[in-house]
Amino acid sequence: MVMRQRTGPQCLSDPQDPSFDTPASGTSFPPTYYVMQFNPTVKVETVRWIVSKLCASRREHGAELLVRKQDNGEDSTQGLTLHISSQPHRLLEAAEDMELRVKPNRTSCLRRFTIKELEAFVPDSGGIVDFLTSTEKQLIVKYVLDNLRAVTDDQHVPGYPQLILYEGQSLVEALINWKLIRQMFPLHDEDYLKALGHSWYKSLSKDQPFEDIHAYFGESIALYFHFLNFYSYSLVVPMILGFYQLLVSNEMLAFFCVFQVLWATGFLVMWNRKCSELAFQWGTINMTSLHDNPRPTYHGKMGEDPVTGKMQPQYPAWKTYTKMYCVSFPLVVVCMLGSFLIMLASFWLDRYIRSQPYSSAGYVVYVPSILYAALVYVMNMYYRELANHLTEWENHRTQSQFDRYRITKLVLFEFVNNFMSLFYVAFYIQDLEMLRTQLAVLLTIYQLINNLQESILPLILQYTHNKVTLSSITKRISSDKIPLLKNIHGEELRHRRGNGGETETELGVEIPLLDPEDTRIVQTKRESQLDPYEGTYDDYLELFIQFGYVYLFSAVFPMAAFWALINNMLEVRSDAFKLCCLYQRPIARQVKNIGAWQRAFECLCAISVMTNCALLFMIPELRSLVSHWSNSEVLFMFVVFEHILLLLRYVLVYCISDKPQWVRVALAKLNYQSRQAMKT
Amino acid sequence: MVMRQRTGPQCLSDPQDPSFDTPASGTSFPPTYYVMQFNPTVKVETVRWIVSKLCASRREHGAELLVRKQDNGEDSTQGLTLHISSQPHRLLEAAEDMELRVKPNRTSCLRRFTIKELEAFVPDSGGIVDFLTSTEKQLIVKYVLDNLRAVTDDQHVPGYPQLILYEGQSLVEALINWKLIRQMFPLHDEDYLKALGHSWYKSLSKDQPFEDIHAYFGESIALYFHFLNFYSYSLVVPMILGFYQLLVSNEMLAFFCVFQVLWATGFLVMWNRKCSELAFQWGTINMTSLHDNPRPTYHGKMGEDPVTGKMQPQYPAWKTYTKMYCVSFPLVVVCMLGSFLIMLASFWLDRYIRSQPYSSAGYVVYVPSILYAALVYVMNMYYRELANHLTEWENHRTQSQFDRYRITKLVLFEFVNNFMSLFYVAFYIQDLEMLRTQLAVLLTIYQLINNLQESILPLILQYTHNKVTLSSITKRISSDKIPLLKNIHGEELRHRRGNGGETETELGVEIPLLDPEDTRIVQTKRESQLDPYEGTYDDYLELFIQFGYVYLFSAVFPMAAFWALINNMLEVRSDAFKLCCLYQRPIARQVKNIGAWQRAFECLCAISVMTNCALLFMIPELRSLVSHWSNSEVLFMFVVFEHILLLLRYVLVYCISDKPQWVRVALAKLNYQSRQAMKT
Repeated sequence: MVMRQRTGPQCLSDPQDPSFDTPASGTSFPPTYYVMQFNPTVKVETVRWIVSKLCASRREHGAELLVRKQDNGEDSTQGLTLHISSQPHRLLEAAEDMELRVKPNRTSCLRRFTIKELEAFVPDSGGIVDFLTSTEKQLIVKYVLDNLRAVTDDQHVPGYPQLILYEGQSLVEALINWKLIRQMFPLHDEDYLKALGHSWYKSLSKDQPFEDIHAYFGESIALYFHFLNFYSYSLVVPMILGFYQLLVSNEMLAFFCVFQVLWATGFLVMWNRKCSELAFQWGTINMTSLHDNPRPTYHGKMGEDPVTGKMQPQYPAWKTYTKMYCVSFPLVVVCMLGSFLIMLASFWLDRYIRSQPYSSAGYVVYVPSILYAALVYVMNMYYRELANHLTEWENHRTQSQFDRYRITKLVLFEFVNNFMSLFYVAFYIQDLEMLRTQLAVLLTIYQLINNLQESILPLILQYTHNKVTLSSITKRISSDKIPLLKNIHGEELRHRRGNGGETETELGVEIPLLDPEDTRIVQTKRESQLDPYEGTYDDYLELFIQFGYVYLFSAVFPMAAFWALINNMLEVRSDAFKLCCLYQRPIARQVKNIGAWQRAFECLCAISVMTNCALLFMIPELRSLVSHWSNSEVLFMFVVFEHILLLLRYVLVYCISDKPQWVRVALAKLNYQSRQAMKT
Repeated sequence: MVMRQRTGPQCLSDPQDPSFDTPASGTSFPPTYYVMQFNPTVKVETVRWIVSKLCASRREHGAELLVRKQDNGEDSTQGLTLHISSQPHRLLEAAEDMELRVKPNRTSCLRRFTIKELEAFVPDSGGIVDFLTSTEKQLIVKYVLDNLRAVTDDQHVPGYPQLILYEGQSLVEALINWKLIRQMFPLHDEDYLKALGHSWYKSLSKDQPFEDIHAYFGESIALYFHFLNFYSYSLVVPMILGFYQLLVSNEMLAFFCVFQVLWATGFLVMWNRKCSELAFQWGTINMTSLHDNPRPTYHGKMGEDPVTGKMQPQYPAWKTYTKMYCVSFPLVVVCMLGSFLIMLASFWLDRYIRSQPYSSAGYVVYVPSILYAALVYVMNMYYRELANHLTEWENHRTQSQFDRYRITKLVLFEFVNNFMSLFYVAFYIQDLEMLRTQLAVLLTIYQLINNLQESILPLILQYTHNKVTLSSITKRISSDKIPLLKNIHGEELRHRRGNGGETETELGVEIPLLDPEDTRIVQTKRESQLDPYEGTYDDYLELFIQFGYVYLFSAVFPMAAFWALINNMLEVRSDAFKLCCLYQRPIARQVKNIGAWQRAFECLCAISVMTNCALLFMIPELRSLVSHWSNSEVLFMFVVFEHILLLLRYVLVYCISDKPQWVRVALAKLNYQSRQAMKT
């Protein structure tokens, strides 16, 4: 399968391959797939070692990639910056190796790429790897980098005897984890991004350019925007009903309430179907995390992996479970309880202040709310740290497990912070008017502020930042050196700059320089200043909270869907803008569904059955209809009503398959074909 | 892959193959895998046609099996009886073709059988197919028979122009469906059965010989006995707690109640794990019904199958769904309501009679109960017919779909019949003493009668039957002929005998006779009189009802688990005896779980949360503890308590994976290995 075997690091010579595609502006160095920025304090031998690994041929267990050094000029605050690229044939080999599924030219259906069938994939005109999207190429190079693994000779990182390596460990991941590589990010494609922005956040038409989003940002982010879109559309019907509800008498409320709850259930079920359609179209539907690489921080005794038979760290699953259920879970519950008590205290303080004679005098009545808001903010920050640490300490083997349990922890806490005070108002104080006011404030002002924070504020920042950055780059070239940082483990390194002068001088003779005229140098300098996109967690969380506001109390605030919809129309644009302009290009992640969020939304939906039923039986207009009933009769009817709704919900979920018929047929067909192929 | 190609029906010549294994007593005809009994009225050309198909080589689209006719003597009431067997090499070829997973000799782990690796499977001594269990051989021959399909020339069944065939239709299934083949069954292995019986129903030791059961009856039946066993063991803890509960005060009831509900949930979750372990060991865990054959009665317009691309009947899925949700489902609900009303009527009648002055006089008070029981029996019979017809009419494509929807319909109705009267007593009349009495009666006397009916009664019947059968066989040989039946479609054919004299004479020259001394002739005559085993439905139903009795009302009848356990110890033996002695050997079915029953049990378990909570709040002793509470406070506490329990249940189900770690690792390993194999 190896097309050509070479010896020695041939990345150091200029690529002479005639099949070379779309060389970057003016130079013969192909497009940069990743920029790798080293910590300025990193030792020379470490860099020399990893660069030789990156360039070495595959026969020598290297990555066989192309590497260029960027001339940072006099700016010694930047660490050594490498541009990583690849020969086209290397991309194709790796694509075959990773079993990438791509669309062949002539058909519309995904197929596993093989070099043998290359003609079916390559278009008649253009380069040999033009059939791959930029995200696919990024994925392939990431695969190659992740599979650059320690061999028997690599006992530890050269220059750092304390950093032990095990055979088969992913080197680049380990160096990033140990902060020897400060950051690694793909470069933005500025032309593409401009066109994308035009049809996305700058356009007022309703549909997002999903194909382009997927091609540029990969599955994980595309799925988020699909979800946002699907969810927004699903809000149209509750919105119309909400308006209608304002017109009709309150007797109809029960009907609306039943409808809302079932609609929310239906939405989640239909999203599941939509999701499997997308996953099928993207070829990720059969993805499993069963033999994913272990996370770089996963540790344990070295042993034979039961799945692959390779030597890898092994950590007993029962230990992880014990940690989860005996330590993390109780701690999370304690935190939730603490947050709940703080909420109670704020309510108590509020009542106390209002009861004082001086309360009418001034703004002092707002103190408890402001205090509470501030406390929640601080608690959230600390809790996030705690959740990260706990999940890290639980030592999950794969990234997907880690994400799942981290999100579960965070969501539980966010649930208490965001909804408990509403529950308290609704079911303890039983002040529906107050609940309605709070919901209105949360769904309008609060969300508006949030959106401004996400879109308008960054716009201004971006504008001033651009000016600052450009001038600072010019300035820094002549600036004095900043004191050297010794600690390679500290978090602080991320934002400070160390001295890398010596390192670069010594390495200068070994790694060829990128043409100093290359536009990529300025681009890299600009983008390395941007924050990396941390993943979709915060975006989903916003929708999760909004979903709660809309459906948990829909019986008392029918306008919720309207405000949510308005917000989401802004949200799409602010998120899009954020991704295109404010962050480094995210490293694409392949996913097949929204993971832990699906269950989080489902739980919220189940809770909404109970809250809506309870609210229904608390609304004065409805209570007056059954005023001849005793309290226990009303309560009994509530139980019956709620159980019927829960049953309906269950039937709905049970009866609607989570995959559309066509997806099931297509999967069966693929399965059938592969079995037939194996027989012959 | 075809080892040898021959032309012409070579089954008619005696098999001369030296590799021939274990010939049946005294003849060179290999073991009979299936007995095929034709309808006595079937036309000669039909038999000739199907026999030639059975014997023809595979190149001629035949089954390449061996066929012998059994001399039924003068007994013209029996239709033509064929013994179907196979050459060993044909078995091996088919095993490879069907991707059978078997245990190779040296390792303990299942592997796909291939002829290439034959040496790995065949033991050092013994015949070439001895490594296959009798059930595996049965499965292979069934696979061959099912894949004997109509070719382009087969427009209709010869002799019956009205019976249209489509290309690719399974011929044997079609003939059985049209009642041209009266029955087809495998012969019992009498020696094996004797040994099996000794260690099974005749033994008093606790463990059933699961390996042997699986080897003889196949997955479906073995899984039932595994379930019965697992369920019985799970009853031990509730039984002990039940005894303990008798000793302690009623205040502890809440704790017991919580425990029972969670225990039942845990049992179902753990069973799911156990089930996946078994399915893994049996190699059925990855089974899907995606490209199963269509059922013989599945009909529709001929069209290209979207999965296989072959011409098959196509019936739009939306029609099936419309029929299900718009006709069947409402009808089922109406039947359930009807049954519920009849129950109410019987209660009403009961009360009416008891209120009459003459009621104390005699047995007249029992009339309503007896009447109700009789009505339920009759209703059940008719409802079963209805459910069969409805499910047939819905036109499901595969047998597993058909089974699932049929069981769902039946279980819903049985639920009303078996539990509604208890619900009525518990929650409407609120007479807990009466509930306790009824439960006691149902769990002791009723179950005992059921068991007698299953084990002792058949024992007696068996004894007399044996005498009757033997004498009737002797008699019938000299009996007069019974009038010919014209209608080939009527249900009645199954039990009457027609005249097949001519047929047999004409065919006599074509199909070689089985040695008249062969013991299989007597065995076939005996077993053809037995009823076929209809599947595990009734057995699971009994457990389902018992599970309901035990867990739905465990708060008031703690002894339920004890009586259930006693019953199950008898049940194992009566079921085992039934299978070994009273029925034809069942055709083995491969399954990976208990299908619709898992969900049925789960629903019952969810309902038991509600009923137990409700009962708890109705028990006078507990009520008196909170006598200072108002009714609505009690009801409120019930709601809170119930929701907490439902939440706990959800957490339990969510947290425990449905596959044990080792199964997940083993599956991942297989997946990894197959991917590795594909790469090289």
